[in-house]
Amino acid sequence: MIHVAVLGYGTVGSGVVEVISTNREELKNRIGDEVQVKYVLDLREFPGSSIEKILVHDFETIVNDDEVDIVVEAMGGLNPAYSFAKASLEHGKSYCTSNKELVAKYGPELLKLAEEKNSNFFFEASVGGGIPVIRPLNECLTADKILEICGILNGTTNYILTKMSREGLDFDTVLKEAQELGYAERNPEADVEGYDACRKIAILTSLAYGKHIDFEDIYTEGITKITDVDFKYAAKMGRVIKLFGKSRQENGKTYAMVAPFMIDESNPLYSVNGVLNGILVKGNMLGDTMFYGSGAGKLPTASAVVSDVVEAAKHKGETVRQIWSAQKLELGEFKDYTGKFFVRVKGSEDELLEEITGLFGNVEVFHADGVTGEFGFITGSMKESEFASCAEKCRGMITRIRVE
Amino acid sequence: MIHVAVLGYGTVGSGVVEVISTNREELKNRIGDEVQVKYVLDLREFPGSSIEKILVHDFETIVNDDEVDIVVEAMGGLNPAYSFAKASLEHGKSYCTSNKELVAKYGPELLKLAEEKNSNFFFEASVGGGIPVIRPLNECLTADKILEICGILNGTTNYILTKMSREGLDFDTVLKEAQELGYAERNPEADVEGYDACRKIAILTSLAYGKHIDFEDIYTEGITKITDVDFKYAAKMGRVIKLFGKSRQENGKTYAMVAPFMIDESNPLYSVNGVLNGILVKGNMLGDTMFYGSGAGKLPTASAVVSDVVEAAKHKGETVRQIWSAQKLELGEFKDYTGKFFVRVKGSEDELLEEITGLFGNVEVFHADGVTGEFGFITGSMKESEFASCAEKCRGMITRIRVE
Repeated sequence: MIHVAVLGYGTVGSGVVEVISTNREELKNRIGDEVQVKYVLDLREFPGSSIEKILVHDFETIVNDDEVDIVVEAMGGLNPAYSFAKASLEHGKSYCTSNKELVAKYGPELLKLAEEKNSNFFFEASVGGGIPVIRPLNECLTADKILEICGILNGTTNYILTKMSREGLDFDTVLKEAQELGYAERNPEADVEGYDACRKIAILTSLAYGKHIDFEDIYTEGITKITDVDFKYAAKMGRVIKLFGKSRQENGKTYAMVAPFMIDESNPLYSVNGVLNGILVKGNMLGDTMFYGSGAGKLPTASAVVSDVVEAAKHKGETVRQIWSAQKLELGEFKDYTGKFFVRVKGSEDELLEEITGLFGNVEVFHADGVTGEFGFITGSMKESEFASCAEKCRGMITRIRVE
Repeated sequence: MIHVAVLGYGTVGSGVVEVISTNREELKNRIGDEVQVKYVLDLREFPGSSIEKILVHDFETIVNDDEVDIVVEAMGGLNPAYSFAKASLEHGKSYCTSNKELVAKYGPELLKLAEEKNSNFFFEASVGGGIPVIRPLNECLTADKILEICGILNGTTNYILTKMSREGLDFDTVLKEAQELGYAERNPEADVEGYDACRKIAILTSLAYGKHIDFEDIYTEGITKITDVDFKYAAKMGRVIKLFGKSRQENGKTYAMVAPFMIDESNPLYSVNGVLNGILVKGNMLGDTMFYGSGAGKLPTASAVVSDVVEAAKHKGETVRQIWSAQKLELGEFKDYTGKFFVRVKGSEDELLEEITGLFGNVEVFHADGVTGEFGFITGSMKESEFASCAEKCRGMITRIRVE
């Protein structure tokens, strides 16, 4: 019998209890042993619920019970998750978590501790919700040098952008609707400012290269400045706007950023819509491969957490190799990142084009249906720093969005 | 040092040698030990090539060399692959193969033998080429009951169908072009008749349920009867035609088939085009997740084989749990499979519709641009046996394609 304790009985935690109960037979078959939830830790009471008898309010009960093999954490935040993780691992228990803040900040330290104790620190659900991507990076894409990772990593922003694209609505209207439907938090900052995607691309990139990226070093731009007019240009160009977390190798350095990008249908992420997530990984031998599915939601996320429980149960007493050292991964300077830009300017093409080509070189001009008094253009490939210095001099510039 | 022998120096075999050589550093980092190709087995000579000095013509040299840890087979076919696999595993070596015929037929036996010898039988490249799907099924989607697997599993047929769809060409013209470009074999039967996809869906389904499917029991229909006119209807309906290998659970039974399907853009496989493959897996907790990428090609396939080599090296002396017993998986009878059908009939709607609705119930009628003297309709959901008996009585029926 494998005994599990679940920390936090919110959406994901209660999902974990449900998955373990619903798929009891499948889990037994996969592991060769039964899984039982012995404790649920939560500060609240749940009178009359099925977990009433296993509910505890005190972490000490769990960490000091030698029968508990695996601790599942679904609380989020750094405190007390960090101290719970350390204590669990120090007691030789495996720790499975969906907590991206914890993983992005303390991943290397907790992996090292797990290794010292012959246990495991797993976090499949911390990126891409139910989509398998952490374990595939560790155990499938192992013959390749990873050249690029590009993901739609946040379901809330993808829902908002998809809805803006399809219905021509502005950002504030759609955000409000998303909040009412429960797709966006009351305080949506972590999603719409790109902070959530930033932690996720930091985790993926650290795992791909085996060294640590401090997520605070990643240039991060959210979607709050994207307007319905931007989508009118996108439609004209056969493009959509997606919030990407991406990293790539160039001249031996790693460049990473979170920002909205305009992409066309040749990009496999083009058709990743609504709350779904997609993660594209480019290997030097494999080429492009994409993982696609539910990036959030109670049961998909819980399914990923429970797949970690299965893996921990199958590897009781031995650490599965995951390479992510505390050594810092050298990030290229953001100003050297190269790409194309879509720019909107006030004024007429006749009046401004010569000046613009003088600044940016040859550009491709676009006029959106029903939009007057301005036009848009796409630059050639240029460095962020070059673009910034041209943009400063560009008369009437309204906005810019990166293009891929 | 991990010593590898490569059986067969064709496209995939030479790719394996190239991946191991190009990504030497990455492999060393992943495994914690160096990988070296000690032998290449081929009947041919390769004078002047880089493998000249390690080329052998005799399998006995390899199997009797205790230094060889891992045998990679990239020959295809059952003979002599089957006897090579058995001998390698009996000598305690791990065996990594891209050979779907071998895996579909002898998977359970070779997995059992590997387990007895504390070695591993791995076959990531046998389905989906470079796309990770075998290991994700074994190690990621483990918290779910798999409800459905649906894949575009054959690049050649997907290339042909994509080209027919985009350019309005007929099957024979596109097949000939694909043969000239090397995307289709001179004898294309295994691809265009669906036999290749059939073995692949048999492997995936066996792994998903842990029991063996005899691929010969799977209803298999190829794409040779699909015409340019069918694509005119598809275009009118906003659909495309894809060759699916699919299996699903219904009332405790498993239904499996290979056949062309008409799908619309709500299906994530809709945008899997050209030689690319995509595999959609539906779990009872996870919902839909899709794996997408290069289903064939020298380096992508070799990358998947080498990821097996990495896994075998990481698990030297211990068997990684893969559940696929020799016990037969109970397949539901094909006649009970339910779905919708697109049907083309000669004649006019005015003349025939009453008779058709009398047979099939309510149908949705379509007229394709530039097609005269016939029309098409889509039925409601019905069993294969019900459809077959209606189709027999249906005057002027030209063809039918399943719809999803």
